[in-house]
Amino acid sequence: AQSSVTVFGIVDVGISRYNLKSDNVGAVTPARPPSTSLKQTAMTSGNWVPSRWGFRGTEDLGGGYSAGFWIEQSLNVDDGGQPLYARRTTVSLAGPFGEFRLGRDLSPTFWADTVTDPFLNSGVGANLIGMVNARLAIFTALPGGGLLAGPNGGPANYIFVNNMVSYFTPNSLGGFYGHLAMNFPENVKNTAVPDTPSKRGQFYGGRVGYANKALDVAVSYAVSTALDAAPPYAVPITDTKISTTNLTTTYDLGFVKLAGELSRATNDSRFALPGAAAQSSADYDGAMLGATVPIGAARLKGSYGYVKYRTDAPGLSPNQQDTVAKKLSLGMTYHLSKRTLLYATGSYIRIDEGQNNANVMGVPPQPTGAFSAATGYAPRSATGYELGVAHTF
Amino acid sequence: AQSSVTVFGIVDVGISRYNLKSDNVGAVTPARPPSTSLKQTAMTSGNWVPSRWGFRGTEDLGGGYSAGFWIEQSLNVDDGGQPLYARRTTVSLAGPFGEFRLGRDLSPTFWADTVTDPFLNSGVGANLIGMVNARLAIFTALPGGGLLAGPNGGPANYIFVNNMVSYFTPNSLGGFYGHLAMNFPENVKNTAVPDTPSKRGQFYGGRVGYANKALDVAVSYAVSTALDAAPPYAVPITDTKISTTNLTTTYDLGFVKLAGELSRATNDSRFALPGAAAQSSADYDGAMLGATVPIGAARLKGSYGYVKYRTDAPGLSPNQQDTVAKKLSLGMTYHLSKRTLLYATGSYIRIDEGQNNANVMGVPPQPTGAFSAATGYAPRSATGYELGVAHTF
Amino acid sequence: AQSSVTVFGIVDVGISRYNLKSDNVGAVTPARPPSTSLKQTAMTSGNWVPSRWGFRGTEDLGGGYSAGFWIEQSLNVDDGGQPLYARRTTVSLAGPFGEFRLGRDLSPTFWADTVTDPFLNSGVGANLIGMVNARLAIFTALPGGGLLAGPNGGPANYIFVNNMVSYFTPNSLGGFYGHLAMNFPENVKNTAVPDTPSKRGQFYGGRVGYANKALDVAVSYAVSTALDAAPPYAVPITDTKISTTNLTTTYDLGFVKLAGELSRATNDSRFALPGAAAQSSADYDGAMLGATVPIGAARLKGSYGYVKYRTDAPGLSPNQQDTVAKKLSLGMTYHLSKRTLLYATGSYIRIDEGQNNANVMGVPPQPTGAFSAATGYAPRSATGYELGVAHTF
Repeated sequence: AQSSVTVFGIVDVGISRYNLKSDNVGAVTPARPPSTSLKQTAMTSGNWVPSRWGFRGTEDLGGGYSAGFWIEQSLNVDDGGQPLYARRTTVSLAGPFGEFRLGRDLSPTFWADTVTDPFLNSGVGANLIGMVNARLAIFTALPGGGLLAGPNGGPANYIFVNNMVSYFTPNSLGGFYGHLAMNFPENVKNTAVPDTPSKRGQFYGGRVGYANKALDVAVSYAVSTALDAAPPYAVPITDTKISTTNLTTTYDLGFVKLAGELSRATNDSRFALPGAAAQSSADYDGAMLGATVPIGAARLKGSYGYVKYRTDAPGLSPNQQDTVAKKLSLGMTYHLSKRTLLYATGSYIRIDEGQNNANVMGVPPQPTGAFSAATGYAPRSATGYELGVAHTF
Repeated sequence: AQSSVTVFGIVDVGISRYNLKSDNVGAVTPARPPSTSLKQTAMTSGNWVPSRWGFRGTEDLGGGYSAGFWIEQSLNVDDGGQPLYARRTTVSLAGPFGEFRLGRDLSPTFWADTVTDPFLNSGVGANLIGMVNARLAIFTALPGGGLLAGPNGGPANYIFVNNMVSYFTPNSLGGFYGHLAMNFPENVKNTAVPDTPSKRGQFYGGRVGYANKALDVAVSYAVSTALDAAPPYAVPITDTKISTTNLTTTYDLGFVKLAGELSRATNDSRFALPGAAAQSSADYDGAMLGATVPIGAARLKGSYGYVKYRTDAPGLSPNQQDTVAKKLSLGMTYHLSKRTLLYATGSYIRIDEGQNNANVMGVPPQPTGAFSAATGYAPRSATGYELGVAHTF
Repeated sequence: AQSSVTVFGIVDVGISRYNLKSDNVGAVTPARPPSTSLKQTAMTSGNWVPSRWGFRGTEDLGGGYSAGFWIEQSLNVDDGGQPLYARRTTVSLAGPFGEFRLGRDLSPTFWADTVTDPFLNSGVGANLIGMVNARLAIFTALPGGGLLAGPNGGPANYIFVNNMVSYFTPNSLGGFYGHLAMNFPENVKNTAVPDTPSKRGQFYGGRVGYANKALDVAVSYAVSTALDAAPPYAVPITDTKISTTNLTTTYDLGFVKLAGELSRATNDSRFALPGAAAQSSADYDGAMLGATVPIGAARLKGSYGYVKYRTDAPGLSPNQQDTVAKKLSLGMTYHLSKRTLLYATGSYIRIDEGQNNANVMGVPPQPTGAFSAATGYAPRSATGYELGVAHTF
């Protein structure tokens, strides 16, 4: 219990303004306006990066080996709220071979979506690809199996993954790096119940890349089993797997740091309905371009994201099969000191044919927002602004 | 993540005895005793001041400016319980102009009720005015809108206020000081729903005063919107606002420090019942006198509080319109060291016509206690005793 | 807020494999297998000892007196989960007379079961006596009175006890030591309701012993009131008391440290059913033998536990009156450093006549496991394996 524990954290609080516009896509009647808007002004936490506090430390074991731990908690600065699950809880053993890390941690795919994004996958400017991935994970993880909050990740193996074993390559590979991860879904095999154990909650993935002083390029891949017909979370779907592949890169020219991402998330479902068998597949193809320009203590940031959804689910007409979301974000940070910065960001989202997949593609400029839920209205466009301060300790 | 974070806390635990006596105010029958008592002996936490732990720090930004943060958690030493919401979570920017503070923090009115009280608004000796204010806030904040625990304060904008922007004047005003605060109620405007956004949860208030070596005098004012007819928390009341005004003062004569408070809390409601419109107003007028006598490492403390409730709600007979509560508290603290103290307090409360407003005026000597809930019984008197130890780190 | 606070913790994470076999003890039909197994592979936390983090400190008051505090939180490293109740929250006053400690803390009986066990009452190798005691406490503490999680301990006054006053003798008694404890059940006396206050949740107990360099021998005794007919948790049982007596010893021969325990837990219930009065008594008699062999940085560990259940509950035939559980555990720890160790443990449990008391005697190799719940199946045998790392800070 001596020394070697660091207390750390980030407190980030701001004022945000959101406007979510939905269009009437059903029959227009006199009593029903062609569009409605939801507008909110709020104090918010975690716009630059999520607020947190925690303890971490490492112990030198000699011979180039070390042990380490990391306990990191969530925190809402605006209302003091804190969830029942920590952000990250890990124990690591590191050496010349690299690092093995056990516990609850970020997925490689979320890490890729975050470090590539000029807006760090947070706040109103967050990477559109990351937001679609998060909504897809949440929407497919039906309640009841713990995929949303706790035992199998939060949310749903896209952001955090529980019960995970991760491996990180050492820093000595001439710029090449890798990160492999898999979890234990912990479902029980019951010899008296066929098909057990369920694979629900199973995750595996990884990220490999190359980085030198200016260039960083990596590819990530992950597979998460969101549903499975086996107990205890039996549903009339034999299997729903979300697989995500992305290619991310940043290039630092000094006066500007460019960022780019290409991503495909595929949602494969096999149904076993009474009297019929079918399957469907949906793709979410995304691209993101970003730039960060340092000017003294300031950083000007911009990004453009595009995600197109297309499904081959049976029984849909062609005009029910796709949706497109586009997002433009502009912002800046200004460092008052090494540990304190101010930020300002504005973002505009436009959604075409949002009614085809409002649950996933109705991306608002805030993680918890929602467009009009009235029947016949579809998400159409959204703006978000935020102004705040973040302090690191 | 270097330096500059302080781990701090207060652990306060004691043994308490409570006795709450209710009188039969209905028909007296042989089977029904004229009075009943609820008695409890308990281990309690937070009698001197609420138990807590947290992290805080400041960073010098140069030129007289600084950034700071404060994360403070609740804790029950007796049973290890800890709520889902932190006590205080704030980020501050300070300079020659004063301090701007964002996040969840104490209201100026609660601060005034607390620092004036010889018993620091805690334990069985707590300021009667503060206890009535807390019960009024809780009782009017109907469930469903988050006013009680989390998103809009706890409880109900009297103690903590969420999503708050506060301003504190600098120390350079020759003894004058001020504290202004307002919050974001964060309710959503829906262009398709009239009267939105609801004002429920809205808070604004402030405190201005003057302090020199011996005298401290201040006036506080606050308005909190407890109910509003607009969705999403629509109720058949168009508006319920609690406004609180108090004048507080302490005067330190050296051998004794005197304290005094005058307070009025007004609960204004406008009803919009079908076929009729009405409004009612209720006042809670309070006064408190206190004294603290230092004798070596000991502090002898006493206070007398008085609160009178009066309403003009339609349909009530004159004898249904008022209630009076009086409270006498005596106690002492003894410092074993700078950071460890023992405390002992006894308190007696007497309530006249408690049946007219038992929810607010039935003030027990503990924050969560309740008098007999049997029909026809009214809160009458209560005693509370506590003995304990508090350690600051 | 200066100095004198230590941040401490233990992060323990491993991979575990469980297999729980149940036998058909009812009618054997073709459609029903004679036995079923539940098998699980999981990432687990707290196998060597429970994972935790916290703050603690002491303040020298002069003259041999000191004040101290301890705040210790639970943590699951595997999934980041953390309960609403802290592990230990205490304030202490210590001096030449010993130590008085107030708050939530471990019971003397749990402490005895833990320090005697080579496997520290944790993980798959945990003391069989301790596991039966924990299950007995949980099973008898019916929901509704807070005995399971919070206000009166967790679980149910065997592990943690809330609202407890403990006394520890000083270190100056020539090797003799003692630990006495009692709690406040905090139930309310209502003068209008006969038999109140309920005694539910009441705990008292203690442990006295003698230790020199090689030998440590102690006897522990505890009584916990699990049920009481009085409100507010009235049940058709006038009284259920669990009394536990154990004799524990360790003897360190240098090349091996031997451990032994004899234990009896008695569950006495008095029923007051309409038209009849009866009472029943059940005994859980246990023995444990263990050994720890240090070899360099390694510790080889083994233990054998035996618990026999016997009841005189009316209406049971002789073959429904007893159950026996036996447990063999083998394991080792290997210290990579003073603060980091690896562990590996395997355990086998065999249960005879488990159907007679599956709730308490169906002991799995993990605290939360369960054998088949299907009608006609009884717990029969279980194996558990675990491999992990623990880091102390």
